[in-house]
Amino acid sequence: MKILTINCGSSSVKFQFINLATKEVLAKGIAEKIAENISLFTYKTKDFTKKKQEMLIENHEKAVQTIIDHLLDKNHGVVKNIKEIDAVGHRLVHAGEHYSGSVEIDDDVIRVMEECAGLAPLHNPANLKGIFAMKSFLPDTPQCGVFDTAFHQTMPSKAYLYALPLEFYTKHKIRRYGFHGTSHKYVSQKAAEYLGKDMKDLKIISCHIGNGASITAIEDGKSLDTSMGFTPLEGLVMGTRCGDIDPAIPIYMHKEMGMNIDKVNMILNKRSGMFGLSGISNDMREIENEIVKNNNPDAKRAHEVYAYRIKKYIGAYTAAMNGLDVLIFTGGVAENMPILRAETCKDLDYLGIILDKKKNDQLTSGIIELNTESSKVKILKIPTNEELMIALETRQILQG
Amino acid sequence: MKILTINCGSSSVKFQFINLATKEVLAKGIAEKIAENISLFTYKTKDFTKKKQEMLIENHEKAVQTIIDHLLDKNHGVVKNIKEIDAVGHRLVHAGEHYSGSVEIDDDVIRVMEECAGLAPLHNPANLKGIFAMKSFLPDTPQCGVFDTAFHQTMPSKAYLYALPLEFYTKHKIRRYGFHGTSHKYVSQKAAEYLGKDMKDLKIISCHIGNGASITAIEDGKSLDTSMGFTPLEGLVMGTRCGDIDPAIPIYMHKEMGMNIDKVNMILNKRSGMFGLSGISNDMREIENEIVKNNNPDAKRAHEVYAYRIKKYIGAYTAAMNGLDVLIFTGGVAENMPILRAETCKDLDYLGIILDKKKNDQLTSGIIELNTESSKVKILKIPTNEELMIALETRQILQG
Repeated sequence: MKILTINCGSSSVKFQFINLATKEVLAKGIAEKIAENISLFTYKTKDFTKKKQEMLIENHEKAVQTIIDHLLDKNHGVVKNIKEIDAVGHRLVHAGEHYSGSVEIDDDVIRVMEECAGLAPLHNPANLKGIFAMKSFLPDTPQCGVFDTAFHQTMPSKAYLYALPLEFYTKHKIRRYGFHGTSHKYVSQKAAEYLGKDMKDLKIISCHIGNGASITAIEDGKSLDTSMGFTPLEGLVMGTRCGDIDPAIPIYMHKEMGMNIDKVNMILNKRSGMFGLSGISNDMREIENEIVKNNNPDAKRAHEVYAYRIKKYIGAYTAAMNGLDVLIFTGGVAENMPILRAETCKDLDYLGIILDKKKNDQLTSGIIELNTESSKVKILKIPTNEELMIALETRQILQG
Repeated sequence: MKILTINCGSSSVKFQFINLATKEVLAKGIAEKIAENISLFTYKTKDFTKKKQEMLIENHEKAVQTIIDHLLDKNHGVVKNIKEIDAVGHRLVHAGEHYSGSVEIDDDVIRVMEECAGLAPLHNPANLKGIFAMKSFLPDTPQCGVFDTAFHQTMPSKAYLYALPLEFYTKHKIRRYGFHGTSHKYVSQKAAEYLGKDMKDLKIISCHIGNGASITAIEDGKSLDTSMGFTPLEGLVMGTRCGDIDPAIPIYMHKEMGMNIDKVNMILNKRSGMFGLSGISNDMREIENEIVKNNNPDAKRAHEVYAYRIKKYIGAYTAAMNGLDVLIFTGGVAENMPILRAETCKDLDYLGIILDKKKNDQLTSGIIELNTESSKVKILKIPTNEELMIALETRQILQG
């Protein structure tokens, strides 16, 4: 089965065309800066790369058309006939409390996504544009949706309720939803596979650390708690997002620092995190460089805050599960930044976590076990693959 | 040495007059509803109680005068001469980063408190009123100040910095300060005394749970991290305060729910916490009653959220210290609510915490050890006594 995965942002469409029989990515790419003066298009197959070609892409429909044209292209295409695309799997963001698993996209799903647009005002409308565009070009091809929030729907109320007036939840739907569900689910399943264990027998903490970052406690294969909350702003320190702060701070920024609420929102989302705290960059490679090469105190201090937050969540979730068997590092930053993993795992042997420094420093790709022999907890570096997970889930739905 | 402790709120003055030689409270009481139409005054000695007498108390100066008049009263007083008051110890709230210990109150301290009034707009001005009133009535009596924030000044930057633009800290003083310092310090010292150990050898987590609530990690006798932050709104679920929430929620309340910022602030501080979530009360005795007697699902659910938050902090701070020797429960709620301690400690044996149910259910006062024999971690219920701590610190300052 060959599946096209689609990930629509407000001004971009990412795609991969995956042959599930071989798990090979036949083609992938991205349309960027949609509806801007100059858009960019990247397309890559085994033998051919077109990198950031400038073109005019007026809207999401045009982006989808461009993707399909490339997949069918006589010279560099990977299908002869559009019917070779067996299904489309959409990465979708917010389904509120409606779905705890992936779904075939029908009118109900579209209605739910419209209903939940207030909870994800940037993402759900973009996701819907991708769905409508795909439906117009591939009306007979099954389309499935994999929601970022779905995996976390198993959280118990003690984990998802905030201590706010109860009608904030019952009426206004304010609760912890959690995000990155597809990644957390994928790497936790990979961990069980790697260890030859049943998910039912594992207590897992999965750290997905990229520019966005979240951490999830997974017990019995189910999300028990996660650090992102009502929105992706809560939790860990991120590239530009603040994560956990005193909720009085946004109020103070408005009342005492004279910022309007849109500015408060912008600063917490785009000028905070490692970018704001280090004053250097939101790119952890630059932070790492400043620490390793220049011993830069601003970079070091920011990195300490960053790792300490992760460490505290590891402790909190170990308490929540009363134990820990596997600690997973995934996502662009956690997969590629040994000093972050070292700083996070330092002095955690009381929880059974002992990192092997040598193993941690090796740059091998694929799944790597990073713990010492004596570590009670397995520490695994697992490359995430949300697109593959979306394709797998899509196949599963279609095959019942 | 006999010390008068004073705790000034915006419309109340609490006091205790303590004989440190015997640790006896000679007199205590409270002036309430200051500057309202009818104020209330309570005064209590070993032999005499005046409960909530209605009177006119126009301002803090009048309240202090009323207190001194009662202490000197021919029939129910406890001193014959004002000189028997050897010193006054003030409970003060916010000293920013200026003091890490208690201080004798001089012009510098007053200046610092005025400087920090923006950080504690309700408390510092009230504290200052009490200081000025006391100085006018007892100009020759030494006056000392014990700050709520002082004990937490030992926190490392990784614990006190938020991931906000760095100038929020350097210029606007936005950082984690922590509160309840006097209580956390007192009970941690009591724990070491009780166990016959040196503070240097103990990793302690102190849960101060009253209507306000905070939890502190104490290593080597020093505060390493604490749950209240820039303000007392962050952290645990409290009587009416929300504690930790997604920082996007205050923004959402304003932008999407149409509340002005003062209302947002009011709801997070006064309509949230157990009050808002349970819909029953901010008084944990009522919540407990509803759980135990009526099996009320709203009370149970809110209580689960409340205890789960504490449990996660216990895990986080155990990770932060890489271990735990003593877990302390103190404060009105934690001292008197066995089901809270039971729910919090349930399934924490991975961290070495095993509660003895029988011991936990006994209602004995004083310091009680609540752990089983096999529990690696000592679990202690310790009555807090901030007034005694203030008196002790005051004596220590005066005796150099």
